[in-house]
Order: sequence, then C-alpha cells, then structure tokens
Amino acid sequence: MAYNLLKGKRGIITGALDENSIAWKVAEKAHEEGATFVLTNAPIAMRMGEINKLAEKTNSQIIPADATSIDDLTNLYTQAQEVLGGKIDFVLHSIGMSVNIRKKIPYTESNYEYFAKGIDVSAMSLHKMLAVAKKLDAINEGGSVVALTYMAAQRTYPFYTDMADIKAMLESIARSFGYHYGLEKKVRINTVSQSPTKTTAGTGIKGFGDFYDFADKIAPLGNADAESCADYCITLFSDLTRMVTMQNLFHDGGYSSTGVSMDVMTAIGAGEEG
Amino acid sequence: MAYNLLKGKRGIITGALDENSIAWKVAEKAHEEGATFVLTNAPIAMRMGEINKLAEKTNSQIIPADATSIDDLTNLYTQAQEVLGGKIDFVLHSIGMSVNIRKKIPYTESNYEYFAKGIDVSAMSLHKMLAVAKKLDAINEGGSVVALTYMAAQRTYPFYTDMADIKAMLESIARSFGYHYGLEKKVRINTVSQSPTKTTAGTGIKGFGDFYDFADKIAPLGNADAESCADYCITLFSDLTRMVTMQNLFHDGGYSSTGVSMDVMTAIGAGEEG
Amino acid sequence: MAYNLLKGKRGIITGALDENSIAWKVAEKAHEEGATFVLTNAPIAMRMGEINKLAEKTNSQIIPADATSIDDLTNLYTQAQEVLGGKIDFVLHSIGMSVNIRKKIPYTESNYEYFAKGIDVSAMSLHKMLAVAKKLDAINEGGSVVALTYMAAQRTYPFYTDMADIKAMLESIARSFGYHYGLEKKVRINTVSQSPTKTTAGTGIKGFGDFYDFADKIAPLGNADAESCADYCITLFSDLTRMVTMQNLFHDGGYSSTGVSMDVMTAIGAGEEG
Amino acid sequence: MAYNLLKGKRGIITGALDENSIAWKVAEKAHEEGATFVLTNAPIAMRMGEINKLAEKTNSQIIPADATSIDDLTNLYTQAQEVLGGKIDFVLHSIGMSVNIRKKIPYTESNYEYFAKGIDVSAMSLHKMLAVAKKLDAINEGGSVVALTYMAAQRTYPFYTDMADIKAMLESIARSFGYHYGLEKKVRINTVSQSPTKTTAGTGIKGFGDFYDFADKIAPLGNADAESCADYCITLFSDLTRMVTMQNLFHDGGYSSTGVSMDVMTAIGAGEEG
Repeated sequence: MAYNLLKGKRGIITGALDENSIAWKVAEKAHEEGATFVLTNAPIAMRMGEINKLAEKTNSQIIPADATSIDDLTNLYTQAQEVLGGKIDFVLHSIGMSVNIRKKIPYTESNYEYFAKGIDVSAMSLHKMLAVAKKLDAINEGGSVVALTYMAAQRTYPFYTDMADIKAMLESIARSFGYHYGLEKKVRINTVSQSPTKTTAGTGIKGFGDFYDFADKIAPLGNADAESCADYCITLFSDLTRMVTMQNLFHDGGYSSTGVSMDVMTAIGAGEEG
Repeated sequence: MAYNLLKGKRGIITGALDENSIAWKVAEKAHEEGATFVLTNAPIAMRMGEINKLAEKTNSQIIPADATSIDDLTNLYTQAQEVLGGKIDFVLHSIGMSVNIRKKIPYTESNYEYFAKGIDVSAMSLHKMLAVAKKLDAINEGGSVVALTYMAAQRTYPFYTDMADIKAMLESIARSFGYHYGLEKKVRINTVSQSPTKTTAGTGIKGFGDFYDFADKIAPLGNADAESCADYCITLFSDLTRMVTMQNLFHDGGYSSTGVSMDVMTAIGAGEEG
Repeated sequence: MAYNLLKGKRGIITGALDENSIAWKVAEKAHEEGATFVLTNAPIAMRMGEINKLAEKTNSQIIPADATSIDDLTNLYTQAQEVLGGKIDFVLHSIGMSVNIRKKIPYTESNYEYFAKGIDVSAMSLHKMLAVAKKLDAINEGGSVVALTYMAAQRTYPFYTDMADIKAMLESIARSFGYHYGLEKKVRINTVSQSPTKTTAGTGIKGFGDFYDFADKIAPLGNADAESCADYCITLFSDLTRMVTMQNLFHDGGYSSTGVSMDVMTAIGAGEEG
Repeated sequence: MAYNLLKGKRGIITGALDENSIAWKVAEKAHEEGATFVLTNAPIAMRMGEINKLAEKTNSQIIPADATSIDDLTNLYTQAQEVLGGKIDFVLHSIGMSVNIRKKIPYTESNYEYFAKGIDVSAMSLHKMLAVAKKLDAINEGGSVVALTYMAAQRTYPFYTDMADIKAMLESIARSFGYHYGLEKKVRINTVSQSPTKTTAGTGIKGFGDFYDFADKIAPLGNADAESCADYCITLFSDLTRMVTMQNLFHDGGYSSTGVSMDVMTAIGAGEEG
C-alpha cells in the first residue's frame, strides 16, 4: 500500500547491495511512495551486487561513488541533481564495514589501520556526505538524512568489536552536523538503530546472525525486519517528521527497552511459574 | 496535503480542549488522513472547551469519560467500538493536570494530595486506558497508542514541579505496558516528548510559556508546534511504524540533543566571534 | 579496611531489615568509616527484623518512623539531631514495597489502590524525607542523600511489575529535589541502581531471584553484592563526591552497558567458535 | 584531608600539563592518598609543561610516551612496573587534542586529516593504552582506568566541533574494552564527564571558557572544579567502587540533569515572579 508520502521528492540512496539490504527495501518503498532517486555504492561493492536490477525496477540511475572520497561525493551530488532535476530532499546513509570483524580479530587486539579504515568508511563518510552537500548547497530546506546504526553504540555486543565504537561516532556526527545543518537550512539528520537484520552484511558478522534469535526472543514484537525499517525511513524522509532531528531512533520491536522477556526467562529456567 | 495514512483506522482521541490543543490538531489531521474516531474528555473539562466544533468538523462523536474511572473508560471503549463499527486502531493520551502547578506551590513544598491527584489523572490514566482496552480486547493487533510527555522527565525544569515526576512515571508505564501488550497483541505504545507548546494548558504553567523563547533559541529547528506534533503522531499511528514501541520520542526541533546554541551563546555574550 | 571517610558525619539509615539488607551493610560500613547515625524503619517492618543486633553492633539508636507520615519523619529528624548532636550529613533511602508484586498480580491487571500504596511508600517517601529535612533545615550544607533503585526504571523486567514505574518516579524525584536542595544548601541527591541482590526483599519478588543468575552471566564483573553496594554508598556520602548530584548511578558490574555476553551467547548456542 | 584510599596502589597518570590540569590535581591527591605512580606525557607536551615540579612534589618519575605509539606505551608500562615495583592498579587517561579546534575550523568544514589525528590522539590512545596493558598483563585484577570526557558526546556544543564525536568514540571504547578487560581480569573502565573546567586546554577552546559561566548558572552546585574532579577520580581508583564499570559518570554539579535553572530563567527575563 502506497501513500505518495514522498511524491516529488528527490533522493540519494547508498548501500543497496542486494535484495536483503535495508537500503534495497528503502529504494523500493521510496519508489512506491513517489520519490525519484539515484543509487550509489562504492565501485568495488557494486561489482558484486545486483544493483542493476534495482535500478531498473525503480527507474533510477546508478552513480558509483567511494563515500570516503570528496571528489566522488562532489560528483555524486552534482550528477544526482542533474539527473533528478533539482536539489536533493533525502539521503540514506547505509554504509558500514569493519576489516577487524571480517578478519575475526578480537576487539582487544584490534588492528589500528583496519580500525581507522572502518572509521573512514563507516562514520566519516557521513560527515563527508553532509559536508559536500552543504558546500554545494545540494539539499533542499527541510531535507532529511537518515543513517543506519546499531545499539552496540550504547551497549557492548562482543561480536560487534570495533563497529560499536564507530557507530557511536556515527551517531555523534549525526547530532553534531544536525545542529549546524538544521540551523542553516532546516535539514534534519537522524540515525535509525535497527534490530539485528538478516542482511548479507549482518550475516557476515560472526555471532550477529546467531544473536538474531536471542534478540527476537527479547523484543516483544520480535526483531524488526528490513522491510519495516524501510517503511520507518520513509516516514523520516516525509514532511510529517519535519521537526525531528539529531535523534537516535530505535527501530527494534521494543528490544532496547526490554531488560528481559518471559521467553528468555523461561529459556533460562526462571519463568516456569510466570 | 493528505496521504490516506490512516484510511479505515478507528481511534480514540483524548484531551482536545480547544483549537490550541495538540489533541485538536491530531483530530484534524487524523480526519484528513482518513481515520474515524471518537473524541473524549473529562466531563468537567468539556464544558469549558469548544469540542463540539471539532466533533462537527471531523464528523466525530463525543463520549465524555473521566480517565481515572474504570467504569467511564469501559463505557468509552464499548461505545467507541459501537459507534466506529469495530476495534480501535489508535489512541492518543493527552491528559495532564497538576494542582500543585496551578496553585503555584513550590516543588519542595508539594501538597501530597494534589501530587497523588496529578499522578492519578496524568499517569495512572494511561495505565487504566490500556488495562481496560486489554481486558475488553478493544484494540486491534498492531494498534498504536501515543501519550504526550515532556522532557522534564529527564532533566529538571523548576517551573514544571511535580509534573516532571509524573511524566517520568507516565513514560515508564508506556514501556511497561508496551512490553505486555506488544507481546500479546502487537499493540505498540510510545510517548512523544514535545517542545514547549503554546497550548492553553502549557500557558497555564508559570514560566513554561516564558521558557518557550529560550527553548526556541536552543533548538536548531526552533520549537516544534502543535501542528507538526500532530503530523508526527499520525506517522506513529500508521502501519509504517509498526515495529516502533516502548520508545520515548523527542519531537523538539533538536532541542534535546543541543547543549547550547550559538544564539544562546551570543545572548550570554560568549559567541561574538563565533 | 577502613579509611575514616565518614569521620564526624551524622546519618539516617532506613531499611535495614536483616543482615542481607543493603542498608544493613551500609550501616556496618558507615560505622567502620567513623560515622554516627540512627537507624529507622517502619514500626511494622521493625518487629520482624533483627535491627536491634545492628543497633548494638554499630552503637546506634533506633527511631521508628513510617516514611509516609510527615509527623513521623518530623520526629525522626528532630530526634536524630538530638541523639547525634547536630545536623545530618547523609541519608540512605532504602524503602520499597509493592503489594501488587507480593500478591503476584500481573502488571496489566494492577490493583490501583496497591499501586498508589506502592508509590506512597516507595517513591513519595523520598520526597517527604527531603521536604521535612529541608523544612527543618536538618541537613548540613554539602550533605548527601542516596536512594536505592533498580534499572527496571529504564528497561522492562516483567517480574518487577509496578515497581518499575515507581522506581522511575523515585529517580525523577531525586533529580527534581536535587535541583532545589542543591541550589539552596548544596545538598546532593543521587540514586544507586543496583544489581539484582539476594536480599530478603529481592528474594520475595517472583522471578527476581531466578533472574539473578542471568544478570550475573551478562555482567562482566558479575552481579554486585550488597557489601560492594554499601562501599559505593560510602563514597557517595563522603566529601570526595561533593559535586555529584541528580545522577542515577549504575552499580552493577557492567550489566547496564552490556547488550549480551559471551557467556549468554554460549548458553544460547551462538558462541561456540567465539 | 587524606584517607589512605590508595595506599599501596601503583598508577600511571597522563596529561598533567600544568597546575591547572585535572591530571595534576589527580596526581597530588593520589600522592596524598598513599599511591605511587609515574607521570607521563607526550614528549612535545612535556617540554612546555612544568611537570618536573609535580614529579618532585609527588616523588614520582616521568616516563615520556606518545600515547599513539604502541612502542612508547609498551615502554611506559614496562618501565612503570619496574619503577613502581609491581603491576599497575590505576590509570588516568587525560589526553585530548583537536587541530580543528585549535585552528578554529568550523565543524562542517572539518579537515579530515586533523579529524583523524584527533581520533588517534584523543580516543584511540585509550584503546592502545588498554591493549598494551592487557597484552603485557600489566594491570592488577580489579584495577581501575578512568578517562576524562565531556558531555558534548551526548549533546551538541557548537564550539567543541570534532571533539564531540571523538569523545563519543572514547566513551564507547571505555565500554567496549571494559567488557573484555572486566571479564578477564576484573579491570574496570569508566569515563568521567566533567564540567567545563578552567584548564589550559579548556581555555584554548574558543567559547568553551566563555561557556563556563553559563554552565555555572545552570548547575545547582555550580561547575565542578579540577580539584573536586580529582577527588572523584580517587574514589573510582579505590576498592570501594570495585563493581562500577563501563559507565559514563557525570561530575558536573548537576548540570547534566538540569534543563534550565531559575538563574538562567531570570537572566532571560522569564523568572521574575519565580
């Protein structure tokens, strides 16, 4: 069911790797809701993805860009505005990568070059996307930027290693930049802290996929899936949330506010009489 | 501009005192978005209000109810389902009253009968509205309940006296009940922590109205008004936010995440060169 | 090992029911650290307790007081100052009682009279203890008040039912009153959010005792016990923390900041290779 | 007044630049409380400082170390253990530097090399200090690490620019590493979020010094000074807080929990009748 919530809006969507990606779902929903947008990914990620199918389905163009490169981002915004015919209304930042996780390096032995790379790709890329947009004045007044994050930024999940610290920085960048961009152009910047999700990226984190069932048992509504996350992002891109900014918004079926569930109590043998 | 976001949904809206009320705006927007609903207020509050105009405009019925009375609430849900032709999909709780504030009693000298009355009317009423609904199985699966709150629940604002503690309890009730109702019926319960708003109730709080300008200077987007708050509530009643529950959501133009603004820095003489 | 951290300080300690009580340990430690104090409890609770042993051991007097009674509290402060020879330097609030929990009433069916009673005994008693103290000017400049709480105030634990909401209010009262008392007399007020603890009260909560092991597996240091909690309270009563106020301080071996532990991951079958 | 709280404990204290430094006060207090320790600073910072006076006064040795260098840190721990005659019990991390701030570069135009440098010096240095300690097994069971931070990590202060994001990462590193080090060795790691303080570093931040008075008016106890912060750190290094870990602890006279004060209300013309 579609509502035309994004009718006439122009966007940039990063991170649509394959049909399991949250970004992929966001693109599908944004298309249904009347938006036009460009898709973008790092050249190297795109070769592996199936992004062409998505582009076709949503009638969008693909503009490759390395989100750590100011030149690439400048080109992205410039081309996007040309292709879409005006300034940008919404941006989805869905970019995360940790070599330390990929190489299964324990957190306390983190490789610092990999750590710095993770920061650059996963957190500083948001700052760069915003800085370039602001410099080019590429985002319309009242535009909306959403970056995806995970609650490891608040509580430790051992398997998430250095991405926890990187997501903490990402969320802070959203607040910091949100202040300035809000003041000048009423652009709002929020992060969505999503349930563990069975994306290709999520599955790549050892333990993260396994952790999925535990979180699902804690959350009273169960884990939120990629599709519902996309729906939530659509509301944040819409004008109906025009005064929401600098927030970290949990989209997790209630997980973040649940200390323990009866399900888990039963599983650990404590809830028999409950 | 309307999107049919609530098409076919049935609701109960409390607290529409006059056209400055957030609840009033929610009713107008819900109507535009295709919902049908009943309006309710305490009998005493209703005599003073102009709720009939709103009922007429939105084609709704008014069912008086004292939200501290289980009998009244039982009648409210029963009649509402009859009038609307089915179970309820959304509920707005916008009920707050402090005799200690009204009588300008300093917080440290709070009258405990008034305090208990404030708790009963402003916080326990949410528990009762939910308990009665659950007992009657009056809310549809995936239904959505929103209660309005204020960030005095997290940080002290001297003029807000006992309502700060009452709102803290209200937010906790939303989490606690949200767990149980979510688990059983996927009903979600959230609180919206709204900017200081020029409502009749808000204006009644000494200092609150005056504080308005200060908060407006802190928030990079300025204070959120009643209308934007209503829009936000609509998104929370819609299916697009079906996995958001047990959250306290700041709707405040960024105020909650801003320590100090350049505007305030300048006002206090610290930002000249900034 | 003692440090004379509270040498010359005078206190009031509530809630020492038996030797498992946190308050009992606080009394022992405060005595070791050079403080003098009075013990107090509700008359009804005291008959059951073994508080006389504690009084003897710590050379303290017992002044019975119902913490919901302004008269009793007025008498408590008046007598305490006489007995101890001067104004009070520290107060421990360790008072909590829920008839809804005791009677195993499900949260969504809470009895509202019991709920109101729980609020009065467990939360409003802190406001009253502070209001009476302030009115009598019974606490020295820089004095310190600590109230014990539990993190159900932030996240739902199904077995904790209405005490979650009551603790949320308690923590808010600490902040609200902390502002006023801090401003006028530099009295500071904090809450300590303690691990599940094997006290007589804790054991009385169905599931709470059982939950103990789960929390112990999450917290990297394990659950904090009553004795370490007492030590922590001593630091908060000392002059070394004179600028800490209006805070909710987690004393929980890291539980609150741990999303999941390897121990729990292993228990749920997710951490084999980790 | 001294209590022997750190009697027999061995420490490493970074960041004592001059007598205005919080680290300087921590060293003085730790000495008074019976600890022995080494002082360390980056070679370049030390040339400017007056650290020799402090070393003399506290009978400590100085071991220069660049906290971004694994080699230097390895040498630091190795030598410190030799000099002090055993494993380390406490570490103070008080290291922060932003070239973007120093060069007055607006946040939205941050230079990314400077940003990366700031991360390396101010946040990753904590990870490195902990990683080296853990690898060398240089910290005793139950040891305590404190890193100084600022609440810009939670709320935006425009003048603090990239240090906000860096402090957010620092606080996350404390949590993440605190989990692992706690689990293995019961070493606890906390951050202290301190009031704006008139240190040489603080004064260097444009607007930060000016902001001092505003924060002082908000906090009911006023801003916490360096000396009280040092006292607080001492309690965190002591055994009395042995179960406190992975926490961010506000040491700020109540600032963080105060939305607005009567003082500020009056200053903005809203509190006349208050």
